[in-house]
Amino acid sequence: MWRELAPVGRDARSGGYRRYAWSGADAECRDWFRAQATARGLAYEVDRNGNQWAWLGDPAAGDAVVTGSHLDSVPDGGAFDGPLGVVSSFAALDLLRAREDTRGIRGPRVTRPVAVVNFGDEEGARFGMACVGSRLSAGQLSREKAHALRDADGITLARAMEAAGHDPDAIGPDPERLARIGAFVELHIEQGRALADAERDQPVGVASAIWPHGRWRFDFAGEANHAGTTRIEDRRDPMLTYAGTVLAAREKARLAGALATFGKVSVEPNGVNAIPSLVRGWLDSRAADEETLAAVVAEIEKAAGERGLRDGVDVRVERESFTPVVEFAHGLRDRLAAQLGGAPVLPTGAGHDAGILSASVPTAMLYVRNPTGVSHSPAEFAAENDCVAGVTALADVLEGLACD
Amino acid sequence: MWRELAPVGRDARSGGYRRYAWSGADAECRDWFRAQATARGLAYEVDRNGNQWAWLGDPAAGDAVVTGSHLDSVPDGGAFDGPLGVVSSFAALDLLRAREDTRGIRGPRVTRPVAVVNFGDEEGARFGMACVGSRLSAGQLSREKAHALRDADGITLARAMEAAGHDPDAIGPDPERLARIGAFVELHIEQGRALADAERDQPVGVASAIWPHGRWRFDFAGEANHAGTTRIEDRRDPMLTYAGTVLAAREKARLAGALATFGKVSVEPNGVNAIPSLVRGWLDSRAADEETLAAVVAEIEKAAGERGLRDGVDVRVERESFTPVVEFAHGLRDRLAAQLGGAPVLPTGAGHDAGILSASVPTAMLYVRNPTGVSHSPAEFAAENDCVAGVTALADVLEGLACD
Repeated sequence: MWRELAPVGRDARSGGYRRYAWSGADAECRDWFRAQATARGLAYEVDRNGNQWAWLGDPAAGDAVVTGSHLDSVPDGGAFDGPLGVVSSFAALDLLRAREDTRGIRGPRVTRPVAVVNFGDEEGARFGMACVGSRLSAGQLSREKAHALRDADGITLARAMEAAGHDPDAIGPDPERLARIGAFVELHIEQGRALADAERDQPVGVASAIWPHGRWRFDFAGEANHAGTTRIEDRRDPMLTYAGTVLAAREKARLAGALATFGKVSVEPNGVNAIPSLVRGWLDSRAADEETLAAVVAEIEKAAGERGLRDGVDVRVERESFTPVVEFAHGLRDRLAAQLGGAPVLPTGAGHDAGILSASVPTAMLYVRNPTGVSHSPAEFAAENDCVAGVTALADVLEGLACD
Repeated sequence: MWRELAPVGRDARSGGYRRYAWSGADAECRDWFRAQATARGLAYEVDRNGNQWAWLGDPAAGDAVVTGSHLDSVPDGGAFDGPLGVVSSFAALDLLRAREDTRGIRGPRVTRPVAVVNFGDEEGARFGMACVGSRLSAGQLSREKAHALRDADGITLARAMEAAGHDPDAIGPDPERLARIGAFVELHIEQGRALADAERDQPVGVASAIWPHGRWRFDFAGEANHAGTTRIEDRRDPMLTYAGTVLAAREKARLAGALATFGKVSVEPNGVNAIPSLVRGWLDSRAADEETLAAVVAEIEKAAGERGLRDGVDVRVERESFTPVVEFAHGLRDRLAAQLGGAPVLPTGAGHDAGILSASVPTAMLYVRNPTGVSHSPAEFAAENDCVAGVTALADVLEGLACD
């Protein structure tokens, strides 16, 4: 499975992936998912929001156990973030069925419906909003707002869905489908080094919570002018305000024990000898609780405004997305940790479809050890042994949840 | 003439121009030039470097008087930078010939060859090097270096020339053509407010010198990672080093009475939730003399290196272009200023084809008043009366230089 998926959307130069939602590479990944479902005799379906499902048993029976993740990527992303969860889900299902067969009458018997899911557009790399597929299903994103999302070329999400053969008018909340789910478990590569740095050998961990996080767009508007002829005192250079804000964001986050990152910027006109008219920077910020996060972002906005006054630059800030703190279901979390022999329980700063679903469904996450701790980069890595340990743990969890 | 040229390459939203060298918009501008030459019965030719010429009289006679400018633009540039010089050149030639006709036997008689020129790729907006057409002709840029220039899509200058129907292997120094020129005069919109701020009503000025200037590319290399999961102490975020360098550049330039601008930046992978692996920023810096310029750039490099050490970011700096100070021919300059009734004599920070040619040919520049002082932006402006004054002044200058 892994080998078939590996080359799709990979950049030959960096080894990184570009699997953007509703792109050609995404379509190839989706074809792969469908083929995996069909090969296993699982009932395949695409829901109204473009999420893919592969069912063992009757979906309508209710109280289903669902596992899965996503197949899309950030720009130049790693191979594991997303795909490891989907591939491990199919592999864990294979393992569970093999246990049924080999242990015979005294072994486990799958008595609840089980499904593997691939949520669409998790990373938000193309349209700027993360977890679009799960947000739509959970009613956390309206059809109107989703339709209006645009990529860097000005193509709307609606048009991109249509071009990929999906009806954009069908999207919206899917409460009936979510009501059929008794538990959702997402396996994911760890995005940090907590497991790698643990004293005991710990290939797998269980998630406790996801920090609240959001994205804010900062528009710094100055005045385009010639870089070689405009006196310093006549300039309204938004690049200076942007630079001041980048440094302020790091400082405010550090003091509060939070995170703040400017990783994306666009400049108009972006010419070497032109003072920019507009610099647009995107802030990603996260903290352990919502109060701290709000305070950090307010301080960054204040610093940007003050620097803007000094530079003659107008600063506007728009919150593009926000996800409140997610506490995964404590019962499910404790049950999984115990079942996995006291696996470490870890918080994370990263958002996931599991975080979105946790508002509607009892939800848990498993993490697989990542020795580099690096994520969203080709350096992201999990050893084969640890991937196998992840699959085994996920099969154990499915057995515990779906079998008598 | 102005009306025909106005819509070519104009962005409907901003009103700014995108006429990049060897693009479709550039080809339309070049067609316009050829049509203007043909309509006036001028001998039209394209030289080995793609510069366009329109000749009145025999080019081989020598001691020619040449006027002109360029038709390409920066990204989202104004309507005047370049085109005003070319349009005014044709208009001044018309005026000169009308004076011949109407004043009859006692009027001026054109006795030296006169040409209008459109130099290719002056702004360097596409391939990153300014004044490519004139640099090649003057032997200030080798064929090999020119061939290797690439645009943002990785297309080489050689391929772009070929696609536009020009033989890239023909390019190179053109000393014979330059030797035929007795004087070159470029009319240009003023890129500043010296004429607008003058106490007397001064629609036209004469150039004294061009500040030395150059472009340096700063590569800030860090490590891509997840913005939501990477601890601050584990980060190697090149955006911070870039931001620190932008602010240092402004400060060092201000203290030295020089100019330093970061107007162009590119980020990899440029995702909202990804710490960048690479931030690339281009510095444009200028000063009244070369020593000051070298000192300012050295201080900026030093500040970047120090900030890089702190951030765990590797900083590399490459000088992409450099133009020494240009003192325009004093004799020609003083003659023009006197002929124009004591027009103001002004220095500028902006590079021009006239600056490149001045190393080979006696060269002068005329400036037309720009009430906004803004340049390289749609806000660039000259009043119609001032444009007419510019044409009249240029016709006077041509009469003085080319007529008995």
